Amino acid sequence: MSDPEALKQLLEAVAQGVVSPQNALTELKHLAFEAVGDFAKIDHHRQLRTGFPEVIWGPGKTPDHIAQIMQTMGDRHPVVMATRIDVETYHQLQPKVHNLTYFPEARICALIQAPPQVRHRGTISILTAGTADLPVAEEAAVTAELSGFAVNRLWDVGVAGIHRLLSHRHVIEQADVLITVAGMEGALPSVVAGLADCPVIAVPTSVGYGVSFGGVSALLTMLNSCAAGIGVMNIDNGFGAAILAGQILRTAARLR
Amino acid sequence: MSDPEALKQLLEAVAQGVVSPQNALTELKHLAFEAVGDFAKIDHHRQLRTGFPEVIWGPGKTPDHIAQIMQTMGDRHPVVMATRIDVETYHQLQPKVHNLTYFPEARICALIQAPPQVRHRGTISILTAGTADLPVAEEAAVTAELSGFAVNRLWDVGVAGIHRLLSHRHVIEQADVLITVAGMEGALPSVVAGLADCPVIAVPTSVGYGVSFGGVSALLTMLNSCAAGIGVMNIDNGFGAAILAGQILRTAARLR
Amino acid sequence: MSDPEALKQLLEAVAQGVVSPQNALTELKHLAFEAVGDFAKIDHHRQLRTGFPEVIWGPGKTPDHIAQIMQTMGDRHPVVMATRIDVETYHQLQPKVHNLTYFPEARICALIQAPPQVRHRGTISILTAGTADLPVAEEAAVTAELSGFAVNRLWDVGVAGIHRLLSHRHVIEQADVLITVAGMEGALPSVVAGLADCPVIAVPTSVGYGVSFGGVSALLTMLNSCAAGIGVMNIDNGFGAAILAGQILRTAARLR
Amino acid sequence: MSDPEALKQLLEAVAQGVVSPQNALTELKHLAFEAVGDFAKIDHHRQLRTGFPEVIWGPGKTPDHIAQIMQTMGDRHPVVMATRIDVETYHQLQPKVHNLTYFPEARICALIQAPPQVRHRGTISILTAGTADLPVAEEAAVTAELSGFAVNRLWDVGVAGIHRLLSHRHVIEQADVLITVAGMEGALPSVVAGLADCPVIAVPTSVGYGVSFGGVSALLTMLNSCAAGIGVMNIDNGFGAAILAGQILRTAARLR
Amino acid sequence: MSDPEALKQLLEAVAQGVVSPQNALTELKHLAFEAVGDFAKIDHHRQLRTGFPEVIWGPGKTPDHIAQIMQTMGDRHPVVMATRIDVETYHQLQPKVHNLTYFPEARICALIQAPPQVRHRGTISILTAGTADLPVAEEAAVTAELSGFAVNRLWDVGVAGIHRLLSHRHVIEQADVLITVAGMEGALPSVVAGLADCPVIAVPTSVGYGVSFGGVSALLTMLNSCAAGIGVMNIDNGFGAAILAGQILRTAARLR
Amino acid sequence: MSDPEALKQLLEAVAQGVVSPQNALTELKHLAFEAVGDFAKIDHHRQLRTGFPEVIWGPGKTPDHIAQIMQTMGDRHPVVMATRIDVETYHQLQPKVHNLTYFPEARICALIQAPPQVRHRGTISILTAGTADLPVAEEAAVTAELSGFAVNRLWDVGVAGIHRLLSHRHVIEQADVLITVAGMEGALPSVVAGLADCPVIAVPTSVGYGVSFGGVSALLTMLNSCAAGIGVMNIDNGFGAAILAGQILRTAARLR
Amino acid sequence: MSDPEALKQLLEAVAQGVVSPQNALTELKHLAFEAVGDFAKIDHHRQLRTGFPEVIWGPGKTPDHIAQIMQTMGDRHPVVMATRIDVETYHQLQPKVHNLTYFPEARICALIQAPPQVRHRGTISILTAGTADLPVAEEAAVTAELSGFAVNRLWDVGVAGIHRLLSHRHVIEQADVLITVAGMEGALPSVVAGLADCPVIAVPTSVGYGVSFGGVSALLTMLNSCAAGIGVMNIDNGFGAAILAGQILRTAARLR
Amino acid sequence: MSDPEALKQLLEAVAQGVVSPQNALTELKHLAFEAVGDFAKIDHHRQLRTGFPEVIWGPGKTPDHIAQIMQTMGDRHPVVMATRIDVETYHQLQPKVHNLTYFPEARICALIQAPPQVRHRGTISILTAGTADLPVAEEAAVTAELSGFAVNRLWDVGVAGIHRLLSHRHVIEQADVLITVAGMEGALPSVVAGLADCPVIAVPTSVGYGVSFGGVSALLTMLNSCAAGIGVMNIDNGFGAAILAGQILRTAARLR
Repeated sequence: MSDPEALKQLLEAVAQGVVSPQNALTELKHLAFEAVGDFAKIDHHRQLRTGFPEVIWGPGKTPDHIAQIMQTMGDRHPVVMATRIDVETYHQLQPKVHNLTYFPEARICALIQAPPQVRHRGTISILTAGTADLPVAEEAAVTAELSGFAVNRLWDVGVAGIHRLLSHRHVIEQADVLITVAGMEGALPSVVAGLADCPVIAVPTSVGYGVSFGGVSALLTMLNSCAAGIGVMNIDNGFGAAILAGQILRTAARLR
Repeated sequence: MSDPEALKQLLEAVAQGVVSPQNALTELKHLAFEAVGDFAKIDHHRQLRTGFPEVIWGPGKTPDHIAQIMQTMGDRHPVVMATRIDVETYHQLQPKVHNLTYFPEARICALIQAPPQVRHRGTISILTAGTADLPVAEEAAVTAELSGFAVNRLWDVGVAGIHRLLSHRHVIEQADVLITVAGMEGALPSVVAGLADCPVIAVPTSVGYGVSFGGVSALLTMLNSCAAGIGVMNIDNGFGAAILAGQILRTAARLR
Repeated sequence: MSDPEALKQLLEAVAQGVVSPQNALTELKHLAFEAVGDFAKIDHHRQLRTGFPEVIWGPGKTPDHIAQIMQTMGDRHPVVMATRIDVETYHQLQPKVHNLTYFPEARICALIQAPPQVRHRGTISILTAGTADLPVAEEAAVTAELSGFAVNRLWDVGVAGIHRLLSHRHVIEQADVLITVAGMEGALPSVVAGLADCPVIAVPTSVGYGVSFGGVSALLTMLNSCAAGIGVMNIDNGFGAAILAGQILRTAARLR
Repeated sequence: MSDPEALKQLLEAVAQGVVSPQNALTELKHLAFEAVGDFAKIDHHRQLRTGFPEVIWGPGKTPDHIAQIMQTMGDRHPVVMATRIDVETYHQLQPKVHNLTYFPEARICALIQAPPQVRHRGTISILTAGTADLPVAEEAAVTAELSGFAVNRLWDVGVAGIHRLLSHRHVIEQADVLITVAGMEGALPSVVAGLADCPVIAVPTSVGYGVSFGGVSALLTMLNSCAAGIGVMNIDNGFGAAILAGQILRTAARLR
Repeated sequence: MSDPEALKQLLEAVAQGVVSPQNALTELKHLAFEAVGDFAKIDHHRQLRTGFPEVIWGPGKTPDHIAQIMQTMGDRHPVVMATRIDVETYHQLQPKVHNLTYFPEARICALIQAPPQVRHRGTISILTAGTADLPVAEEAAVTAELSGFAVNRLWDVGVAGIHRLLSHRHVIEQADVLITVAGMEGALPSVVAGLADCPVIAVPTSVGYGVSFGGVSALLTMLNSCAAGIGVMNIDNGFGAAILAGQILRTAARLR
Repeated sequence: MSDPEALKQLLEAVAQGVVSPQNALTELKHLAFEAVGDFAKIDHHRQLRTGFPEVIWGPGKTPDHIAQIMQTMGDRHPVVMATRIDVETYHQLQPKVHNLTYFPEARICALIQAPPQVRHRGTISILTAGTADLPVAEEAAVTAELSGFAVNRLWDVGVAGIHRLLSHRHVIEQADVLITVAGMEGALPSVVAGLADCPVIAVPTSVGYGVSFGGVSALLTMLNSCAAGIGVMNIDNGFGAAILAGQILRTAARLR
Repeated sequence: MSDPEALKQLLEAVAQGVVSPQNALTELKHLAFEAVGDFAKIDHHRQLRTGFPEVIWGPGKTPDHIAQIMQTMGDRHPVVMATRIDVETYHQLQPKVHNLTYFPEARICALIQAPPQVRHRGTISILTAGTADLPVAEEAAVTAELSGFAVNRLWDVGVAGIHRLLSHRHVIEQADVLITVAGMEGALPSVVAGLADCPVIAVPTSVGYGVSFGGVSALLTMLNSCAAGIGVMNIDNGFGAAILAGQILRTAARLR
Repeated sequence: MSDPEALKQLLEAVAQGVVSPQNALTELKHLAFEAVGDFAKIDHHRQLRTGFPEVIWGPGKTPDHIAQIMQTMGDRHPVVMATRIDVETYHQLQPKVHNLTYFPEARICALIQAPPQVRHRGTISILTAGTADLPVAEEAAVTAELSGFAVNRLWDVGVAGIHRLLSHRHVIEQADVLITVAGMEGALPSVVAGLADCPVIAVPTSVGYGVSFGGVSALLTMLNSCAAGIGVMNIDNGFGAAILAGQILRTAARLR
């Protein structure tokens, strides 16, 4: 009785006297959560409406499993994407899923019905400190583009060569929302947030060695930033950064 | 020569032949950084324009020092606030600074020329998991209100009593941006982000004991959330959450 | 419309034709969560029924706040208890709350309408490695007793003097559920679980110095135990251990 | 002289004057531990009686070694199982051990004389937050089933989609004991324990990346849970969770 | 029936026909552990015989508690000592315990019936890296002396001034067992063990700041030492070092 | 308009009345950072002037990528080097880059136009504690030599055999700047800094096992050294040590 | 026989036939370390010669102890200083030590025979990220000045307001050696080292909250810096930074 | 001039008037450390005398390197051993080194001139908690045996089956020195030290999973043991345990 139709039938049966109010009450006892099942569908609709693609987290799933989920989702969603897909897994997916697109640097596999178009106002600007941070930045960029957002890429502008960063100051100034991606000491977001007049998202990467501790040091730097108001992500989580950036731009659209 | 007026005078002197191009060039040599000093003022203006209050981080400063900075800033800014001010420090500040307002739960001291009004579209909704998280949540709330944003408070809706949270689902659904504040296991943002359709900011608090490690456990929970796109703050950083939330709403306004 | 009565009235209005099924459906749309509010009440009843006392976690609450909550709860609950209450806080609570009982070693304050009696089958046996672990063990013991369970205390039977422990082997053998409390290296649960034929709960304490790291070392020992099936609690969490032990005995009673 | 028979013979020899009390005293000197050796046998019997299978922890043992232990144990035990056995090790074990059963997802190899039947009252309900937590959950499930307990599986009901969990609320409500398995932020047990009225066991898994720290973050979440009374296991320790759950149901049976 | 006398009486009663073998068997059923209780007494004797003083760990005990234990033990032991006793606790103990001796630097309180004499062959040489390590070194020295061992003190010979250490090389060469005490980087044991031809015990101290992490850094240094065969103690555990050194010298005496 | 020439032309146009001061002001608005772009070029020149080779950090770059960067840089720089290049990568680079030199122990690949000569006063002395620290020490040595500095190598003089170190005391005494390289407990710099009268740089290595934690223990030792004034590097960062040592000697030359 | 005079007498006795070469050889057997005692004196002279003040680390020493050491040293050294001396300790030292100078911000107490003069070429420039880093920076500055070096102070130029830093670029460019002091995220040294052409020393401070972990986060940032060649100090170790900076300038002087 | 012969020649030259005392003094200036070089040789002799084998730590050395060192040492030492040698490395060493013996479980390769005999009084008893701890225990056992000590092995007596341990109590009681080897929770040494009357050495192993953290948990347990006087080793350091045990027995022999 989890769908509205069933609920409607019950109420009609009450109206027709076929079911007594008392018996309906009993039957409705667990309605709350069956109705919740209904809300889950509405959530489902919400996800379609927002334009964020359906996403499968790749690690720990077999290629067969990923392929099956992608195809099932692909029937009802314009874009379905799987993250953290290495080249080998892609080669195993390719024969199983028709029309698969692979973004090697972003390590994203996607099932795209139509070329993604910019469907939202505003631009997401993505900066990296070094070239080794690129895979994480591309995960963010591709996720954002597949979600219908315009993306502005700016690579290799780390703080140890501050002029490289400052010479691109207009990118920071004109951004609607900024994603900063950095490994090693992870100082880029602090400097960027001091220059920007928009929300800044920071993604630490696992780039580095020794006491970079696989990105923990960069993460701590970002959380401790003396530049107020930076939203920090888990290490290497470019995908999450794109989702937050997209939510920010969608909120902007909704508030109009 | 760091302000535009001085720069304009130099250029006019060149136009009038009073200063040769060569001498002007020499004088302009360090312009970049004097002009940078200029940008710093513009930044300053930007800060006035954005409506974020001038903020002094209290810890490690003497009451005399705080008082002096507040008064100097107070001449040029409608709102000046100092964070992490305990009651004792407030009592020492009170005789030194005229018209001081104290928000005891938020531990914020402010110099306010006129009662802050809501000057921005959108509402910042703030949720706490428990009552002990209140000081951090109030730091966020007061900062947001002093910055001209409308705030919606919802306390004590932790996940161990999920119905308390769900019964306020409309708050989550109608939010423009959400700040979730939680200590102990810090699971609130995960559940909220699964229900919300707007940017979610998470603030871990130092509430807890044993392996809560002063908020580190809650922080890790938030960074690891399987709900994508949560922007995480340093432990107890309610202030930073408010700044990010404010930036998000301002971006929305700017994109219109 | 969050209570069953309101729901019943709606259904009767449908039966009487006063409200159409379609309108009722609309009105029921948000029922799920209002009904959830209803479940919360049922949860409330469940708590009364199970006999676990209402519990207030003391830290971070003012004596006034604690007193107010205790009195409000005291009207509807036979036992209300507050944990982690030091002597000073107790002295501040005493004049504010009538008939307050204080358990100094357990650091528990309780409002008890009638002397707690053993209302459940089975005994909870509590063992400590040293005398310094006593406050945590007493927190467990008093919680269990206030919840209506019989408690068997056995203090200072740490593994460095294994014969002390073995000479009380019958306590371990006859236990229905065991709570083992240990600081320093925390090895007691491993030995006990090897001897016992019932569920074993382990509580690490913050007793120790140097690399005991405030109980973390004991916690790790318990989680790594080569004796299978030990349920581990947060450091110093005697209260939680008692709740789990109580749940185990209640389950036993329910399965009969 | 480690068995009661030998002890009886000695005492009879004393009664008959064949052995002097003094000599018997000398001979009894080490009796305590020879008798302890006797108790070890009784322990051995206890293990047979309880129905928990004999278990071999696979890691660090050669296939030959595992095969030999399984066969020796198999002579006297209806069920012998080895945990953490990957597919390759299984393929090496297969030709060496007759009638071997392999549970690939649970990574358990077992020697089963007769199909395991439910021999205990009560059901162990196992929930996972995600599909990647399955191997750990299956380790728990298979261990429980081989021990003669009924198991109820409920996969992929993580808190970020709270309605999925709530729509299965009856599983939680009707459970006799609950095992919750979660990686990443590990918030599932907190929500479940808030809904349940039975003992809750939590198993963190190593699923996640970045600051999930191989399951440590989920572990901390579970230990810090604001829902009181959760018994926590080591990371990925599905086996231990099943043993504790089994002990809980057996206690129930014994208390009757 | 836990002492040998009682056991002997039982056996004699069997020999005299007063108790039947069958009844004796029943009575002996729990002998193992009662006899274990007997062994515990023997352990007790062992402790008296070895000359190690009875020791009470001070932290977490009230002065009343410590006083009571000291007096009870004092009746049967020539030396009773309590460790980690600060000056204030000593002042509270003094009026309660007759003839109390206090070693302020070692923070040890002792009840000594006769001045301790050197009763064992061999000398325990104790070296510290700095003067701030003195309290820990004195805890070791006083413990050793109260246990009847000769002690050789050598303070402030840290490795940053290697000549100070080398100029006392004969102390290292002539030592029977060495205790090295060091905070900060804790490098002293590595150098000493390279020079010594006897067992070397290392005690890290909590002296230092920043990343000394309260002695953890010194501890790690000692555990990682490239000089093989150093036995490491917990941070600030001078007492334990003295016990191990004493055991080493007693073993030497026993092997003769 | 980022170079001085363009700026001069603008000023002359103002002098000639071709451009009004107002328009020039507008055009100069972004000058600061275009001029900053100019400074970046000057920085570039500085790097050529100082003689430090251009350096590419190898990890995370494809051989194609490294080859391309090396060749581009090689046109304008006498020495271009890539660090952390393993043998396999070198074999992939060799056919792509002409005249490549490989230093296998140092894991450095270099493009060298002319054999590097000593172009600076002073010697960099490099000491290792063990032979396993050699790759890190060689990374420092080769970097220094390619930068034009004289290097003095002294391997395997760890503190557990203090005489080996002391017998080479003249190396320490005659050094202009010392690089000490050590894994395991990392105590070498403390002893060396106590003997030296020049700047001491310390590089922890990842050599060790157990609680060496991949070099973290050695790092902590060096940071906590009681010998004042040691400059510490990240784990295994021989390259950075050479750069700092080079800067020190260049400063010496500049101060003359 | 540890001084040269004694050695000379022995050799003369050999020359005069009073002592045979064989006997002299025997007597010289332990000369090495007695002679080492001699070297220790030379080290002592070295310390006087270099002009670094004699330094006492205050923590863990009583005021009486500190006073006594200062006076003893004061007889032979022009400058004696004690670090980490809080105001209270100073007030206790003042009546005991004649002519004591106190630097409250640097928390340094000094016994100075004559006003320190600049006795070395070169300037030590010290930068702080925030005002709260001042005590550590002043510890470095006062140490350097008491050692006879010129100091250039530049406070509050953190990277979140990059223009403040860039507007003082000439300080960085003209520095002979730079000490950068920063808490929170500690990113200042990375930016400074990218701009500087001299050795850069980094001192993390314990300024911050939450995951600043008392300076550990800033320390990690500095060790991970992508700007090569930064020498890092322990947390809050301003003193050590000054000693290293002084060694660098003294090396410069010596190389001339 | 580092050998005694050279020193003797110098002294004879002085006696013969060939070298003046003054010139000899000058020449002797650096004698201290050349003489120290002499002491190094004496150390060398000490190592031969003590009977500890020459040891090469295998990791990070090529088979060629290990082979060369073994052969060089083999000329002058009756036993030369290399630790941490896996089977593959052994197969590479075998053709290069004549008469090589391999101990596969201990992972030790040795060059033994004559079968090692027991040359010291006393027995080293080695206990392991589980069978997976065997490689570490065998490293200790083989090292001890190659050093001429008698070894008593007792495997698989972990504390979760306390009777197994207690049934071998005589081994513990009769031991002269005990090495306890345990992974997982590492509780064995605590129980053993409570029963033993001789020095106890504890070796944590990396056996375990999850929060065993590669042996760190076992290490912490051992350092925190409430049984006083346990000497703890680095994780998996069976070799070091044997050396310490050997030193203890040798001290015993020397004290006679």
